[in-house]
Order: sequence, then structure tokens, then C-alpha cells
Amino acid sequence: MSNLPAAIKIRPAGAADVPTILQFIRGLAEYERAPEQAVATADDLLRDGFGAAPRFRVLIAEHNATAAGFAFFFFNYSTWLGRPGLYLEDLFVRPEFRGQGIGKALLLRLARIAVEEGCARFDWQVLDWNTPAIEFYQALGAQVRKEWLTMRVEGEALRRLAAQAH
Amino acid sequence: MSNLPAAIKIRPAGAADVPTILQFIRGLAEYERAPEQAVATADDLLRDGFGAAPRFRVLIAEHNATAAGFAFFFFNYSTWLGRPGLYLEDLFVRPEFRGQGIGKALLLRLARIAVEEGCARFDWQVLDWNTPAIEFYQALGAQVRKEWLTMRVEGEALRRLAAQAH
Repeated sequence: MSNLPAAIKIRPAGAADVPTILQFIRGLAEYERAPEQAVATADDLLRDGFGAAPRFRVLIAEHNATAAGFAFFFFNYSTWLGRPGLYLEDLFVRPEFRGQGIGKALLLRLARIAVEEGCARFDWQVLDWNTPAIEFYQALGAQVRKEWLTMRVEGEALRRLAAQAH
Repeated sequence: MSNLPAAIKIRPAGAADVPTILQFIRGLAEYERAPEQAVATADDLLRDGFGAAPRFRVLIAEHNATAAGFAFFFFNYSTWLGRPGLYLEDLFVRPEFRGQGIGKALLLRLARIAVEEGCARFDWQVLDWNTPAIEFYQALGAQVRKEWLTMRVEGEALRRLAAQAH
């Protein structure tokens, strides 16, 4: 087991962290070259993550009590295994805090949560041009599921499809 | 709006449908050339889908009151849009009922559920060799998200990662 610098701490997020979470979401959208697409508001995150039936959970990584990064996740389900899976939607470390093992510490903590909560798998997605990230994930034991393509219907196409339903 | 044959009906699944759902899951695993990987049991599905906090939902398509196919889904979350998304894990129509529009009817019904429940997106995955399915989905307005790769840690690699967490 490697040592995490004493300055770094990982904790679950609460409602008071929503402004910070929103900054991280926007920071990641910029890194992924789509800043204009991150339109979520604080009200959205409060309603969906910190009410009676949360749709997601968030970990905050702190460096000397300053929020340095986050992991945003929820659970999916494997029909083959009959068990939930942990799905990591967003992982982000602020540029000035990189290179200190914070991203890795978040991933390890998520793996522990997955095991503790009976998950069979821990999945996430990565952009195909992000070679350093892919290699980092592979070094941790992750595999690229090359044969699976993701399909999406959204916006007007989704409404058009819905309108045809019986 | 096209017409669905009067013989076809779509309804939400209940606990009594678990044996049928299990048959469909195994049928799909065979079609995807991995029958040995579908090890979920009836107890697993009952516990995770039909208790106090269901982890998934299922639609059953009936042809003259015989179960002909199913859609197995749950909700994910878009941090960019601040809205849930509908994720289709499994879609399957028994071979003898294909070519009657049952798969399409299930997809349309899922699109309607997505819109009704405030989802921004409707996503699923498809194997890259399944060209007929990909073309069928594209004709319905779905797009292939080619630039996104799925990463997965599971089994021993997941336990190893979890054991390193602080």
C-alpha cells in the first residue's frame, strides 16, 4: 500500500459542496473541450443529489482543507452478474493540484466503495485521444472495452421518438 | 405514428416476471456469444429490482399475452445537463417474434418514459460487429459516440485496487 500524503483527505460531499462541485464539473467540461455544454445549475445538483432519493454521490478530495478534486458517481446494474456496478461519471483534479496522487486516491476509494457495497464492476468512460489517462487507468488494472459502442438519443431526436410511442 | 399490431402489448414487469426476465437475459447472453457469463439468479433479480429501493426497471412486450421480449433499464446522470438520463442495459426479442416491430416498440416506450421522467438522454451500448442493430438504431435518431471508450475494473483487479485505498 502506497502512502497518501498527510495533506490529502477524501470525504463524501454534502449539500454545502454544491458550488465547488459545479466548479469542478465546469473545469472538466473545459478540459474535454466542451465548456458550453456544462449548463447544470446549483439547484439541479441540490435537487438530484442531496434530497430524499439521491441520484448520485460525490467524493471531495481536499489538500490542506482546500477542495482539490472530486469524483461524481452512481450505480448501474449487471444483468449477467445480478449485481450492481459502480459507474464513475466525472473525475477531476484542479490543475494546480495534479501530480500528487489525488486522482489515484479517488479511484482507489471508489474501488473500495464498490467492493464494500457489493458491486461486481467499476466502469467509466474516457475520450479516445486522452492517451495519458488511458495508460494510467490500464496501469491500475482497468481494461478498455473496445468492442462496445455507446449509442445516444437526445434533444429533438428523443422527443420525436417519444411522440411515436404507443 | 405507425401502428403497433393489436396483438402486441407493452407493460412494466412485476416480481412474478422474474423467471421470464432471467430467460431473456440468458437468451441475450447467448446472442452476444457469452452464455457462460450470465450467472444472475432469480433471487438476485428479486432482491435488486422488486424490493423497497429497486436498482432497475423492466418492460415486458407481450404478443397475444405471451412474453415475447423485454427491456431492462435504470437511470444515470448527466453532470453537464444537471438531469437524469435513461440507460438501457438489455433489449431482447425472442427469435420467433422478431420482424414484427417489437424491439422498436420497446425503444419508443423507453423514449417516452425518458421524456416523461425529465431525462435529457437515452443511452445504450451495442457490440461493434452488430451492424444491423447499429443501422436500426441510427435510423431511429441515435448517434454512435465513437470518441468515448469504456474502461472497466472487475474481479480480482477490483479487489486489489480496493485493498490499496486509504
